[in-house]
Amino acid sequence: METFYYEKQVERWGTAEFTCRGPAEGNPFLEHTIKGIFTGKHETVEADGFYDGEGIYKVRFMPSFEGEYSFSLTGSFLDKTAEGSFFVVPPSEGNHGPVHVAATYHFAYADGTPYYSIGTTCYVWELQSDERIAETLDSLREARFNKIRFCIFPKHYDYNLGEPRSYPFEGTPMDSSILTSENFNAYTQGTSHTAGSSGREENCGEGATGSDWDFSRFRPEHFRHIEECIIRLQKLGIEADLIVMHPYDRWGFSCMPEEDDGRYWQYVLARFSAYRNVWWSLANEYDLMQHKTLEDWERYASIICEKDPYRHLRSIHNCHSFYDYRRPWVTHCSIQRQDPYLSAEHVSKWREEYRKPIVLDEICYEGNIQFGWGNISGRELLRRFWEASCRGGYAGHGETLMNPENVLWWSHGGRLRGESHKRFGFLYDILCETPGLGLAPYDLKWDCVCGVPEREWMNPVKSYYLIYFGFTCPSFKEYYFDNETEFEIEVIDTWNMTIEKQGTGKGKFRVELPGREYMAVRLRREEKQK
Amino acid sequence: METFYYEKQVERWGTAEFTCRGPAEGNPFLEHTIKGIFTGKHETVEADGFYDGEGIYKVRFMPSFEGEYSFSLTGSFLDKTAEGSFFVVPPSEGNHGPVHVAATYHFAYADGTPYYSIGTTCYVWELQSDERIAETLDSLREARFNKIRFCIFPKHYDYNLGEPRSYPFEGTPMDSSILTSENFNAYTQGTSHTAGSSGREENCGEGATGSDWDFSRFRPEHFRHIEECIIRLQKLGIEADLIVMHPYDRWGFSCMPEEDDGRYWQYVLARFSAYRNVWWSLANEYDLMQHKTLEDWERYASIICEKDPYRHLRSIHNCHSFYDYRRPWVTHCSIQRQDPYLSAEHVSKWREEYRKPIVLDEICYEGNIQFGWGNISGRELLRRFWEASCRGGYAGHGETLMNPENVLWWSHGGRLRGESHKRFGFLYDILCETPGLGLAPYDLKWDCVCGVPEREWMNPVKSYYLIYFGFTCPSFKEYYFDNETEFEIEVIDTWNMTIEKQGTGKGKFRVELPGREYMAVRLRREEKQK
Repeated sequence: METFYYEKQVERWGTAEFTCRGPAEGNPFLEHTIKGIFTGKHETVEADGFYDGEGIYKVRFMPSFEGEYSFSLTGSFLDKTAEGSFFVVPPSEGNHGPVHVAATYHFAYADGTPYYSIGTTCYVWELQSDERIAETLDSLREARFNKIRFCIFPKHYDYNLGEPRSYPFEGTPMDSSILTSENFNAYTQGTSHTAGSSGREENCGEGATGSDWDFSRFRPEHFRHIEECIIRLQKLGIEADLIVMHPYDRWGFSCMPEEDDGRYWQYVLARFSAYRNVWWSLANEYDLMQHKTLEDWERYASIICEKDPYRHLRSIHNCHSFYDYRRPWVTHCSIQRQDPYLSAEHVSKWREEYRKPIVLDEICYEGNIQFGWGNISGRELLRRFWEASCRGGYAGHGETLMNPENVLWWSHGGRLRGESHKRFGFLYDILCETPGLGLAPYDLKWDCVCGVPEREWMNPVKSYYLIYFGFTCPSFKEYYFDNETEFEIEVIDTWNMTIEKQGTGKGKFRVELPGREYMAVRLRREEKQK
Repeated sequence: METFYYEKQVERWGTAEFTCRGPAEGNPFLEHTIKGIFTGKHETVEADGFYDGEGIYKVRFMPSFEGEYSFSLTGSFLDKTAEGSFFVVPPSEGNHGPVHVAATYHFAYADGTPYYSIGTTCYVWELQSDERIAETLDSLREARFNKIRFCIFPKHYDYNLGEPRSYPFEGTPMDSSILTSENFNAYTQGTSHTAGSSGREENCGEGATGSDWDFSRFRPEHFRHIEECIIRLQKLGIEADLIVMHPYDRWGFSCMPEEDDGRYWQYVLARFSAYRNVWWSLANEYDLMQHKTLEDWERYASIICEKDPYRHLRSIHNCHSFYDYRRPWVTHCSIQRQDPYLSAEHVSKWREEYRKPIVLDEICYEGNIQFGWGNISGRELLRRFWEASCRGGYAGHGETLMNPENVLWWSHGGRLRGESHKRFGFLYDILCETPGLGLAPYDLKWDCVCGVPEREWMNPVKSYYLIYFGFTCPSFKEYYFDNETEFEIEVIDTWNMTIEKQGTGKGKFRVELPGREYMAVRLRREEKQK
């Protein structure tokens, strides 16, 4: 029997890894399989393993409970089943388990801690240099983001036309030296020059001539590196919203045959599922991937549902038209705004339509590039965050500010240069102070948005109101709820990040405001002294 | 025969007035009528006259052509018809005649000069002191407004709860000294204190107890004063968009019986029709006048159509739901935005729906009062103006900035304190430089609005594009129309009111922008040198 290496002790929601040697000849990705069955007092989990190159095979497992677990590992190249046991200890500090849907519209970690998503997008931050990756992680931590969307495949798109640090498959890319100014526009999307275009189209490897990818041979170091990045995010308490497919491609990865796609999905699932901070985004702008059909997306979804034993969050991101978020496998909406004007304003409507958490992963980025999806102000992006939050949804950040180094956060990560990211931590703290798991939109007045605790939605008078005035500039507001309830009044400047206490109000009361934009009022019921 | 006094010479689109003495006893408003028939080479016009008090009767007429006219005046108290003639001379400078609809979606003066509406709202500016009226006129002139909406009846509403300088009818208002803090909220609307209210409700004279209005006896000095104000506006080239009815009432004028309403309408029409700068707004927020039915509004419209021989512009203004602007008597839409977020953005849709000029008389006012309809920033209001303009519509201004004197432009007129009004003249000049009578929206790209000349809407390449970026902040834009046309490129800063020439562009060309909000690009086809 082969010897398996593994740790005898793993923490709850940590990643147990079982490693053994096996055949390296032929094509192990096609010719060999390995899997494990893990049994504790409260669960039995079956998990596929994977070939990690150089004769190394691995099976990973994330235990959801504490106590003793037994394992049983089988492989096509193994004479007999390998068995043994290990012990799951309590989670270390900061480990709250994976995030799941809670209270229909919200999220919570497995240990019950509420999760208020403050996400950003850096499509291929992990495929940059080590220095830039470190810089990105510092930026994420400083800005207090707790989710980042990024791609497993390299990305070919405006402002990001270079080669990545590694490729997912064996083979060589087209020699980019054959690019001339003539074929460059066909090779790249060339859409920024075209009137009427949104600047978003699939390329699908039209420039892939000259490449010789072997989609049946993964490059384990590409995936191993992504795992390291997932773990580094995990240590910072940041969810890794993995974009498994996307259309921004000159290598042909976006239009592989069905069989290769399936093998890719299984490899991704076998490698990444056991990291607690992973979310599955089937695709970015799935509707730009013209080689894929609805049946394809549903098939990928069924592969996830079959092969991810931990039921990580699953969604799919649109360009023009939404995917049908009512599909049972979709855990939450991952929305790109469809309208040039309204984005976060639709959260209330979408909540009613889908009855799932509304995550607005793309509501235009703070920036100044030529495209309308990447040139709103920091003020406007922050407004959309607050608007979404008070409507019981979750907005997402991105930054597309031009700079001499041509390093744009939205694509490369690096250093944040904008204004909005400095202000999300303040919003996050306020969300953490809401009662329950999140807010529900409440129709208080027509000229504000108002969030109340989801669980108090039916109560005639609530214990908490978060009222946001957006672009309106009132000098005061008057409220009346009832004659008895006493509210603590706080005036919140969402841009300058101040909270001014204005005493308490009962019956009909007035709140003084500064007559400028981006203000909010928080009313909290005074708890009676015992 | 009674002697009629009149001027032997009047200018085209001026106001000819024929005055005679008649009975003052009894109730002349009920008991006597007077009218005139005016005949020139190109028209015969029948116009009702009116009793102007103190035994004076008048008939007014606005000639639409030059040359000799004859008149024939008859009255219930006159023994026989009075006849004579007068001469119509060419219009004086600045007199372009009344404004009418032109090119379906736009306006032009009767002499063919395009009219680009830059309107404002001061509901009862004319019922303030002489000093304030003079100040308002100065402000209107300086800001270069060319339309003002105001009411014939006094207005009872927040920030304007005092008594007007005069009343339209004989009688005495309720003694306001009987108001106590107890009944004041019933007496006034009290709506600003109520959660969920839009702050707009009809009061309809609930506090009229104690008043003894005689709706059959007009107070001519009230109307005479309004005429003076109309004439002062006329001299400044400003259209008087007269709001004939409205719901903000504590005197009972908004709920008179049908017969009194009819008499009021006829009196208004007889007095004001012969002023070329008059527009008819049947009501402000007609849908808040719960005592009036659709049949009432249609009846008032038919009175206008019958009694206004000059076919002045006619519309009606909504609070919540639009009046049916497809009704044949409606010459243009007079819209209050219905949505808290979108207003000017709907111009394109409304144009297609109504096929009439879209005037957005209320798209929220620049201000800082407690109500969402009166507390947007000057930047946002200017943005709505540009958005409307590039979509081939016309926006309207109003100002509700709180101040120690409690004089709010939107209600009282006076001095402008905001930021947006300083920038409408710049927009107006740019509109005056558009080819033809106005702009049509053109779907150039999804992330801008673009106006092209209405008459070139079908041309594949236009001679003129006005492209507005609103709240987006591009650093550059790229355009391609064809390989031949050469465009003069101008970058317009709509807030700082600068126009930067960037040479010419042909084929694929790039426009450099500053990466901030409120920018526009104007592209004009270079005319070939002969």
